[in-house]
Amino acid sequence: MILTVTLNTALDLTYGVPELVPHASHRVSEMSERPGGKGLNVARVLSALGHRTVVTGFAGGATGAVLRELLADLSPQEPTDPGTGSPDAPHAPEPGTAPAPTAPAPVTDALVTVAGNTRRTIAVVDRATGDTTQLNEPGPLVTADEWAALLGRYEELLAGADAVALCGSLPPGIHVGAYAELVRSARTAGVPVLLDTSGEPLRRGIAARPDLIKPNADELAQLTGSREPMRATRDARRRGAHGVIASLGPDGMLAVTTDGIWQAAPPARVPGNPTGAGDSAVAGLLSGLVEGLSWPDRLRRAVALSTATVLSPTAGDFDRAAYELLLPRVGIEEHAPAAR
Amino acid sequence: MILTVTLNTALDLTYGVPELVPHASHRVSEMSERPGGKGLNVARVLSALGHRTVVTGFAGGATGAVLRELLADLSPQEPTDPGTGSPDAPHAPEPGTAPAPTAPAPVTDALVTVAGNTRRTIAVVDRATGDTTQLNEPGPLVTADEWAALLGRYEELLAGADAVALCGSLPPGIHVGAYAELVRSARTAGVPVLLDTSGEPLRRGIAARPDLIKPNADELAQLTGSREPMRATRDARRRGAHGVIASLGPDGMLAVTTDGIWQAAPPARVPGNPTGAGDSAVAGLLSGLVEGLSWPDRLRRAVALSTATVLSPTAGDFDRAAYELLLPRVGIEEHAPAAR
Repeated sequence: MILTVTLNTALDLTYGVPELVPHASHRVSEMSERPGGKGLNVARVLSALGHRTVVTGFAGGATGAVLRELLADLSPQEPTDPGTGSPDAPHAPEPGTAPAPTAPAPVTDALVTVAGNTRRTIAVVDRATGDTTQLNEPGPLVTADEWAALLGRYEELLAGADAVALCGSLPPGIHVGAYAELVRSARTAGVPVLLDTSGEPLRRGIAARPDLIKPNADELAQLTGSREPMRATRDARRRGAHGVIASLGPDGMLAVTTDGIWQAAPPARVPGNPTGAGDSAVAGLLSGLVEGLSWPDRLRRAVALSTATVLSPTAGDFDRAAYELLLPRVGIEEHAPAAR
Repeated sequence: MILTVTLNTALDLTYGVPELVPHASHRVSEMSERPGGKGLNVARVLSALGHRTVVTGFAGGATGAVLRELLADLSPQEPTDPGTGSPDAPHAPEPGTAPAPTAPAPVTDALVTVAGNTRRTIAVVDRATGDTTQLNEPGPLVTADEWAALLGRYEELLAGADAVALCGSLPPGIHVGAYAELVRSARTAGVPVLLDTSGEPLRRGIAARPDLIKPNADELAQLTGSREPMRATRDARRRGAHGVIASLGPDGMLAVTTDGIWQAAPPARVPGNPTGAGDSAVAGLLSGLVEGLSWPDRLRRAVALSTATVLSPTAGDFDRAAYELLLPRVGIEEHAPAAR
């Protein structure tokens, strides 16, 4: 199974309004709520790709209870077709072109209960333009005992994990070196670890030598001081990350790894909502790693998934038909070893 | 006791942000949540004035459960000083100047549970300017059976009520003549009834001849087509309301009643947040009615309470010290009978 860690889970609310006008009153015309926080989004995509996933992190209070109910609803009660193979061993795809299997796999809730109330995030979508205004609550204050409980749970789960993703911001009370601690445990356990966070937690986490990081241009610039993708990505590797997959937004991804350097680009720029595109990319990279795909194939999957997420009418979901169409059309360019 | 009816209760969230920028992402720096919907706000002020209050209406789902917990926290467990008189019979104030008693009285939860989820409202307060952007969820779909349960509960509660306030918007599923129905039941039971709503539910409700309505300038204009306060207020009376207390915002109130016409004005325009000022005015009018105060004294109390609500740092609460200072300073002008 693949483990995802979301220390600052969230109940994600989406509000549709005709137009957001500051200092005015708005009736919300459409609303939806779903379990959120980056690691939960990654788990949702992994499940859709047929990978059994376990989520841990913190949840508490009334909002945490709602989040866990919605998370339970997400998971299929029974494998839809047990005859097509175990959820842990999806069909081996044709190199480079075959999508992952379509039968969703279960998402198991291994969240640690905290006394504080899980945060809400609110995405206010302007129906006229599709633009989104985001309001994020800070999250519950996590105590030292609750952090110790998470560490214990994490160590247990690592024993059964094929890969782990550490995702998102830290809630109040969690020390800034928390991700570094989680990276070290994963490396000790021999489990490949991907770190997807920003700011000081990313800086500290990288020093613990994660297998992969997946920063976007802003996160890279904040980390390295450079907005030039190749320079910044290499700098991030020097800081400790074995592999750096830089998200270049609509231009695709730049992967600088021990095996080589590749640039992957979608066939075209697409209109839509980029919310969750990075989380879909993480799911693509991790599922590809667990399935033993080559770097070019992992990158094709990550770019196709994140582009199909931008295209989806529902923020954070991916459009499966678009994903399958895009997958063989992602352009991959390998940089000559001299460029490394 | 005083009964307040809130058909569309809400969990009111207040988010502080440095500045609300459309299409940007915001970290909420401060947040609070409390039980809301106009009738619950009225009950909170009545409680602070020493009036035992019962709240009914609908609540359901996870948000309804949080609302009811917060409502329970609101009510004092024991009268703070039973020796000073029963909460139903506060000290008779010196005409026109004495504030209501300060010991809070209990607020009893008689809400009807519904299957749907109680709505949230979100007030995003721009810390730079103090301006508020409001986002209101629509509320749960209420079924015919749930409405029938509310009618039964309401009839029972009317038997013990000295006055009733019908407050706020209608949730989905409730027919537009719902307030008219509730007004008629109150009149049949001989309980004075104040209706505080807007749009078509107000238009229909007025035709059932409530004792009082408390529209603001916009609601009056929508009802009557006139923005001239005296003309619009008289028109509203002709439509069926026995008394019309028009809120003129910072200019105070205009009362057109069977006993006379008065204009009440605060001593000065005050800066602050008008959220909840109208609900405080309703609490002032109803408490004054139950205590047998004269119209000028009821208006003094309503204007002083609503001005003290604008001045309060917390949206919807009133500043008690300001209230006591303002009360004897509210200006009352009686219009000559010829002006009627």
